[in-house]
Amino acid sequence: MNTGPARGMRDFLPEDVRRRQYVIGVIADVYQKYAFEPLETPAVENLETLQGKYGEEGDRLIFKILKRGEGAETGQADLALRYDVTVPLARVVAEYRAKLPKFFKRYQIQPVWRADRPQKGRFREFYQCDVDAIGSTSMTVEAEILSAAADVFVRLGFQDFQIVVNHRKLLNAVLERAGVPKELYGPVLVVMDKADKIGVDGVRKELAEKGLADKVATTLLEQLSGAPPANLSEWMGQQSNALNDDGKQAIEDLRQIFSLCQSTSAGAHLALDRSLARGLSYYTGPIFEIRVADLAGSLGGGGRYDDLIGMFSGESIPATGISLGLERILVVMGERNMFPESVVSTPADVMVVQWFANRTNLYLSFAKELRDGGLRVELYPEAPVEDGKKVSDRQFKYASARGIPFVAVIGGDELANGTVAIKNMKTGEQASVPRAEVVKWLNS
Amino acid sequence: MNTGPARGMRDFLPEDVRRRQYVIGVIADVYQKYAFEPLETPAVENLETLQGKYGEEGDRLIFKILKRGEGAETGQADLALRYDVTVPLARVVAEYRAKLPKFFKRYQIQPVWRADRPQKGRFREFYQCDVDAIGSTSMTVEAEILSAAADVFVRLGFQDFQIVVNHRKLLNAVLERAGVPKELYGPVLVVMDKADKIGVDGVRKELAEKGLADKVATTLLEQLSGAPPANLSEWMGQQSNALNDDGKQAIEDLRQIFSLCQSTSAGAHLALDRSLARGLSYYTGPIFEIRVADLAGSLGGGGRYDDLIGMFSGESIPATGISLGLERILVVMGERNMFPESVVSTPADVMVVQWFANRTNLYLSFAKELRDGGLRVELYPEAPVEDGKKVSDRQFKYASARGIPFVAVIGGDELANGTVAIKNMKTGEQASVPRAEVVKWLNS
Repeated sequence: MNTGPARGMRDFLPEDVRRRQYVIGVIADVYQKYAFEPLETPAVENLETLQGKYGEEGDRLIFKILKRGEGAETGQADLALRYDVTVPLARVVAEYRAKLPKFFKRYQIQPVWRADRPQKGRFREFYQCDVDAIGSTSMTVEAEILSAAADVFVRLGFQDFQIVVNHRKLLNAVLERAGVPKELYGPVLVVMDKADKIGVDGVRKELAEKGLADKVATTLLEQLSGAPPANLSEWMGQQSNALNDDGKQAIEDLRQIFSLCQSTSAGAHLALDRSLARGLSYYTGPIFEIRVADLAGSLGGGGRYDDLIGMFSGESIPATGISLGLERILVVMGERNMFPESVVSTPADVMVVQWFANRTNLYLSFAKELRDGGLRVELYPEAPVEDGKKVSDRQFKYASARGIPFVAVIGGDELANGTVAIKNMKTGEQASVPRAEVVKWLNS
Repeated sequence: MNTGPARGMRDFLPEDVRRRQYVIGVIADVYQKYAFEPLETPAVENLETLQGKYGEEGDRLIFKILKRGEGAETGQADLALRYDVTVPLARVVAEYRAKLPKFFKRYQIQPVWRADRPQKGRFREFYQCDVDAIGSTSMTVEAEILSAAADVFVRLGFQDFQIVVNHRKLLNAVLERAGVPKELYGPVLVVMDKADKIGVDGVRKELAEKGLADKVATTLLEQLSGAPPANLSEWMGQQSNALNDDGKQAIEDLRQIFSLCQSTSAGAHLALDRSLARGLSYYTGPIFEIRVADLAGSLGGGGRYDDLIGMFSGESIPATGISLGLERILVVMGERNMFPESVVSTPADVMVVQWFANRTNLYLSFAKELRDGGLRVELYPEAPVEDGKKVSDRQFKYASARGIPFVAVIGGDELANGTVAIKNMKTGEQASVPRAEVVKWLNS
């Protein structure tokens, strides 16, 4: 009998869960500070809610659920597993419009399922961590979303991250000015977006393959790649003069984002990346990505998308969002040893030894004192056969194997003196502490 | 287009999520204090892992997932949605035996899916919240699990709960002594278990229907129903003398549980219920249930089940567990208004108003100060068209509609004086507070 998880799925053992909960906890706490609110939607959606929303390729990757009862024998599906948290958000906005605030700022951290071919780092069940602000066209929203993202990465211990921004309307205006045919906008942006991976020559080659004239490609490369402008404000002024109305609007939006972010945590990390395009087609305004120096790809990204949230109601509803790459963040933090030892590696702060054969009540009371003092306490579940007999061996070994940093013993002497012997399992040092002061001692 | 959730599924809007997270947070925190560790398994399991584990009725209620790719056209299923968290636990114990500690104490709080007919209070997606201690036969484990459960209910604000216990081996011994035929043990216990709902006459009637002789039924009713014995210790001694070896062992277990719990939070809530049987067939030792006075049914229950966890490896692995009825707890707490207002009802502690048309940077900086001070801060996203123009109307209304308790304004006077005007949205009172003291003021 196969006892592994299903293909492409993962079991999270306790240390995995603690790592995940730690990161999720930081993200949730930070976004709550910005008054974003949690939303949860069911894992199972009506198939018709999801189908046709993710393109042909996406449709194929949806896990479909067999009809039950009378429909079972037909082999047909009527339900499906959540594929992302954006379509459910659009559904929720359409369904509960009257109950939701005018500016609906929500975060949603839930697993999604995709029937992708599993490979290294790609799973069939993974978490999405999306933050979206719905209902306002103000760039203040962009500034707040980016500021919160910066807070998240700082609190997780990243120091070297960059928040790069660009604007879809600026890209389009530059493409227009350079003479790129409209039907090539999409493919050309996808190629330009790879500049940091395939280099200028690679971009040139791929643009030619897409059918872009060499001269147009040269102009584009001048405009979109290379180092950011030295004087951003001056560059913005020049650009604005030479662009169409959409381009002017884009420059104004970017100008505001840079200005507003100066008063937030994002300011110190912000940079313009003229080639940033982001893969998804639905962005309509500012776009952004969070990068760390030594990692290809990003730790998160997003942008403004004013036409997606209204898909079920047919309206245009302004929205800006960022998706933090939770699985990716976990991998990078693991590789860099960024998890605080105390939080994720140990199941308890201290283990209480059972020294006497028949005094479990004593140890239960003592464990209660420590727990009431806020400590996480393991009580070794089994009393020894004789007082103290081989206790040190078996019980101490157990604590050590589990990575519990301290072990507390009340034996004969301690009972007589009202003390507790506490052993530091790393250094081997032992201390005798009055029972009433153990909580304080362990907390210090 | 239907924009509701699928049948029997629920969307959790922000206040719902906050309520759920509050209860889950308390449960997780308490069990962590007892050194229980979190486990998470995938929502999707191989169909063969689940099938045949829940009986015929259970098998029918499993949501099955259609094969993808080449198998798609056959209409067959190879995967299924998690139906409970017990079978996955057994699978995990078999798969990772070498990596898990000798005493594996885990909690698992995850949704499960059942294709039940939806009805009031019964959903197709709901959370299970299971706590199990694997690997020890010591009654200390029972005492710790019950003590933690008591801590959970106390922290949630329940005062009137009872933890009732009984023992499967005691029940069996009493049935044997009363002359119940072995094949009727199961059905008879199910009937006895309903004593509090259908009364003594109802029990008598149903026992007769099951084919139990009237005399035997009378003996049983004497033995199993009615008030708990006045002198528990004395009663245990009498029982023990008149029972078979299994019965004697059961009495000894119960004696230990009552004794050990006196040193824990469970002691004050513990009672024997001689008719408690618990529905599931797999219990082999002590069983327990958590009840509140005015609620039919229980808020949680469990027991010792020494033969289930080894189902995949064919071993007998000792285990004791409790399942807390999360959905039920939420309903009762909602009805009784037990959720702390500040935690669940408001998305922010304070809203920062944008008074000036062109000073969003000022408000972003101020919001940052408050957030750095630990507050949850909503910044109204849109600046007014003119300074102060209609600000009070629109922005104050918005804060009020969202239930945000305080609104902070920096207008002309405040800017000149280095103060902030803070309005209490409930009382209407207004205070002028130096900007540097706003965090302290709001936290007090």
